[in-house]
Amino acid sequence: MAEPPTLPARTGADLLCETLLAQGVDHCFANPGTSEMHFVAALDRQPRMRCVLGLAEGVVTGAADGYARMADRPACTLLHTGPGLANGLANLHNAKRANTPIVNIVGDHATYHLAFDAPLTSDIDSLARPMSHWVGRSASAEDLGRAAAQAVSEARTAPGRIATLVLPADHAWSPASTKPPTAAASPPPASPDPAALARAAAALRRGPGTVLMLAGRGLRAEGLALAAAIAATTGARLLAPQANARVERGLGRVSIDRVPYVVDKALAMLKETASVVLVGAKAPVGFFAYPGKPGSMLPAGCEVITAARPEDDGLAALRELAARVGADTAAAREAARPLFAARRELARPTGALTATTVAQAVVALLPEQAIVCDESVSSGRDFFPMSWHAAPHDYLQITGGAIGLGIPLATGAAVAAPGRKVVALQADGSAMYTLQGLWTQARERLDVVTVIFSNRRYAILHGEYVQTGAGVPGANARRLFDIEDPALDWVALARGMGVGAERADTAERFCSVLEAALARPQGQPFLIEAVI
Amino acid sequence: MAEPPTLPARTGADLLCETLLAQGVDHCFANPGTSEMHFVAALDRQPRMRCVLGLAEGVVTGAADGYARMADRPACTLLHTGPGLANGLANLHNAKRANTPIVNIVGDHATYHLAFDAPLTSDIDSLARPMSHWVGRSASAEDLGRAAAQAVSEARTAPGRIATLVLPADHAWSPASTKPPTAAASPPPASPDPAALARAAAALRRGPGTVLMLAGRGLRAEGLALAAAIAATTGARLLAPQANARVERGLGRVSIDRVPYVVDKALAMLKETASVVLVGAKAPVGFFAYPGKPGSMLPAGCEVITAARPEDDGLAALRELAARVGADTAAAREAARPLFAARRELARPTGALTATTVAQAVVALLPEQAIVCDESVSSGRDFFPMSWHAAPHDYLQITGGAIGLGIPLATGAAVAAPGRKVVALQADGSAMYTLQGLWTQARERLDVVTVIFSNRRYAILHGEYVQTGAGVPGANARRLFDIEDPALDWVALARGMGVGAERADTAERFCSVLEAALARPQGQPFLIEAVI
Repeated sequence: MAEPPTLPARTGADLLCETLLAQGVDHCFANPGTSEMHFVAALDRQPRMRCVLGLAEGVVTGAADGYARMADRPACTLLHTGPGLANGLANLHNAKRANTPIVNIVGDHATYHLAFDAPLTSDIDSLARPMSHWVGRSASAEDLGRAAAQAVSEARTAPGRIATLVLPADHAWSPASTKPPTAAASPPPASPDPAALARAAAALRRGPGTVLMLAGRGLRAEGLALAAAIAATTGARLLAPQANARVERGLGRVSIDRVPYVVDKALAMLKETASVVLVGAKAPVGFFAYPGKPGSMLPAGCEVITAARPEDDGLAALRELAARVGADTAAAREAARPLFAARRELARPTGALTATTVAQAVVALLPEQAIVCDESVSSGRDFFPMSWHAAPHDYLQITGGAIGLGIPLATGAAVAAPGRKVVALQADGSAMYTLQGLWTQARERLDVVTVIFSNRRYAILHGEYVQTGAGVPGANARRLFDIEDPALDWVALARGMGVGAERADTAERFCSVLEAALARPQGQPFLIEAVI
Repeated sequence: MAEPPTLPARTGADLLCETLLAQGVDHCFANPGTSEMHFVAALDRQPRMRCVLGLAEGVVTGAADGYARMADRPACTLLHTGPGLANGLANLHNAKRANTPIVNIVGDHATYHLAFDAPLTSDIDSLARPMSHWVGRSASAEDLGRAAAQAVSEARTAPGRIATLVLPADHAWSPASTKPPTAAASPPPASPDPAALARAAAALRRGPGTVLMLAGRGLRAEGLALAAAIAATTGARLLAPQANARVERGLGRVSIDRVPYVVDKALAMLKETASVVLVGAKAPVGFFAYPGKPGSMLPAGCEVITAARPEDDGLAALRELAARVGADTAAAREAARPLFAARRELARPTGALTATTVAQAVVALLPEQAIVCDESVSSGRDFFPMSWHAAPHDYLQITGGAIGLGIPLATGAAVAAPGRKVVALQADGSAMYTLQGLWTQARERLDVVTVIFSNRRYAILHGEYVQTGAGVPGANARRLFDIEDPALDWVALARGMGVGAERADTAERFCSVLEAALARPQGQPFLIEAVI
């Protein structure tokens, strides 16, 4: 074998790494390969960059999503060529739908090697575009400072974007002497349109029949308090979309309902709505289409007013709306008090373990300032409606319908929020897509308690099949919907990745296992298989 | 809840399913979602279609690859919208590089629902194109017969292609009365160019200094025998590419070497080469680029003659070349006899368990007509050089460098070849990408014995890092290369998915566990964690 070459004193990869740090990106969720070795060498020279390994790329991108939702700033990912990016796209889809800022660094072959069409060659840019707001490439090693700074700026553009920078190996390994660009401020969100605000205020003043639908920063404590005062003053109704990146929830916070996932229920909830005022939210639509059912969840003739687009300053919009409807007074805030969760029911469930008793137990036992990551799909529909009287917590959920986010999301949220307990509510079928994330929880000593709703089926598909009118699932359908035969042993799977685990099949046992899991010393992730 | 609608007596999905069956596609590797429910209902009406569930889409597409490599005809996959396809793209990349025929059915929203930009909406066509040779959509329910027949025909176009058909939900659920198109014959491969064959024959007749490089059908027994006669007659050298979809190998077959993965070794092997004659193969290039090393593995001035492109009839080319160089005689076949593997060394290894002793044990114990699926990466480099004296077997390996193929590939190969033992040689790091495939092996009662090379690291990256000249990996690099802390417990992981498993840490123990695993009754997959 030939002697290895001499590594330049400073490479393009060093410039890239220095630029990321200068722009405030100091977490790298990674699954590298050969073409990224010089970037890894640069990371090695920068102990300030925390590197978190995911054993599959869905873990990497999902964790970057969870991290940024809690840290309110982007991490970077490190992915290996087109296939590595492809493996991470599903959770980038979720992150894009959550308006999460992420900077993807995707290694590619050396520029001159592409002509050889080596086995790992693929069209990375085309793969990246559907799940990215911005896709860029460096022009040279010296250009990597500019390219990285632009990627971070794009990611931080309101409300949060996916920026993908393709890194040719020869740019990473060639010498670079350029200084990293100085840190840029986050681009400010756009100002809401005053004319739209005026129309929105008029609709809100009409009170009942108007829905104020919030997303983004509007679902944090400050935005919810403003919205509650508006609702109390005008009689308008507060609602959140079906899926949300982050909601501040629990005792002392405003309890807000969501639009239901099931079309008939959503239509029923919204059928008397004359006007919808959107603050960072989109008008509610069916998650899927069904024969003979509408795509919009709003009744015919319903007025839709976009007071603030997702990229606008939603808090500014709420402040302005509050002022316009007279809700910026102490009296209005006092009138809103009933909308805040103040009562706490601590009763622990007993008897059979069901989706409902699992939810009751989590509500009763949730620690202060926990982070709940919800990919419980059909099993978890009971949780949110009762979680307003849990201890104050952040609620993160899957936003883009690409299942396999839950375990990575919890992993990244825990990385971002040391000292807080993360509780992942996780459907078993969905958990299997990215169970590799459990290993990262063990490796990084993360305070995550994962609750697996173990019903041994894609329960949602059983329900959806009935909606086709095909009747009872036959042999082929059951082979595709049921994940019994063999049953998954989640205790074994978790322990196989270094995560402690227990099984529970009664409500009492689940409560005691959950209580013990939450009382474990810091840095000991745990999994509970809730057999329901 | 509203009553479910009445399912039409025959839907577009039924037409699609009937067409697939009529065209000889009777295996469906699937991970469906809501938008594919009517296709599932159609599958339910067609018990002739064997449905195989994968708990992650990388399992689905990788198994479809393994199936088609052994069955020599395409299966279809069923994937759920853009993110479901995205999760399967990495193994479609490998399949594309293996020239494997696959028909992907990707469910999409109803056509009229796309305008609502519901959460799961994405640009499926753009995602599909980089890893597909053909991407199509149906125009209506009635069009699904034409669309499906075209997809199958595209997949079966030589040497084998990836065809992706996007299936809008409303086309699947709407009534269809059209008959399925009648079965079409596979499009024949193109005829080799006579002028190129003449140049190739001339180069072969020059003997030493000429390499005859085979791929595709040239690596099955018939092609190899023709090539051996040519080599014995002319003195030309036989070689296979570094990565191959399927090689017929072992006692009684022609023992052929591969171009090494390591650039310096490949350059050394080929440095005296004056001419390369390609039959279905591409000229050898570096898997990756390295500073100061060439991209082509051929010496300067080496003549490259494409006797048959991958899409040409390679066997016809070999027959014609044999005739032109006088190798189509009994004497030539007799002269080729030394190129056939005839000796068998059955010595079992003893002592320490290493990558080498694992390979020795597998060679010694491999059953007749086994199928070896190799994603052992750096740990498995000893196997192929000694496998020519194993029992006759088929050898399948990862072709596109997108790790995470091995377990699914073995799964699909076992589905295609009941009654044959499948032995998967599997690196631990790569195994983690698609370990969910073990569950499918248990569900489908497949005769797969998976050997995990458990070195608890991405060993290849340690080697590649040194090649950057960065010296010994530091803290961040080790955090990205090593998968100890915690160690993965592969016995627990396998059992958690219903697959029996044992650990071995000496050569003697490995031999006895492997022997017992191979002797298990049919339908009991097993995993051996080889701690090396």
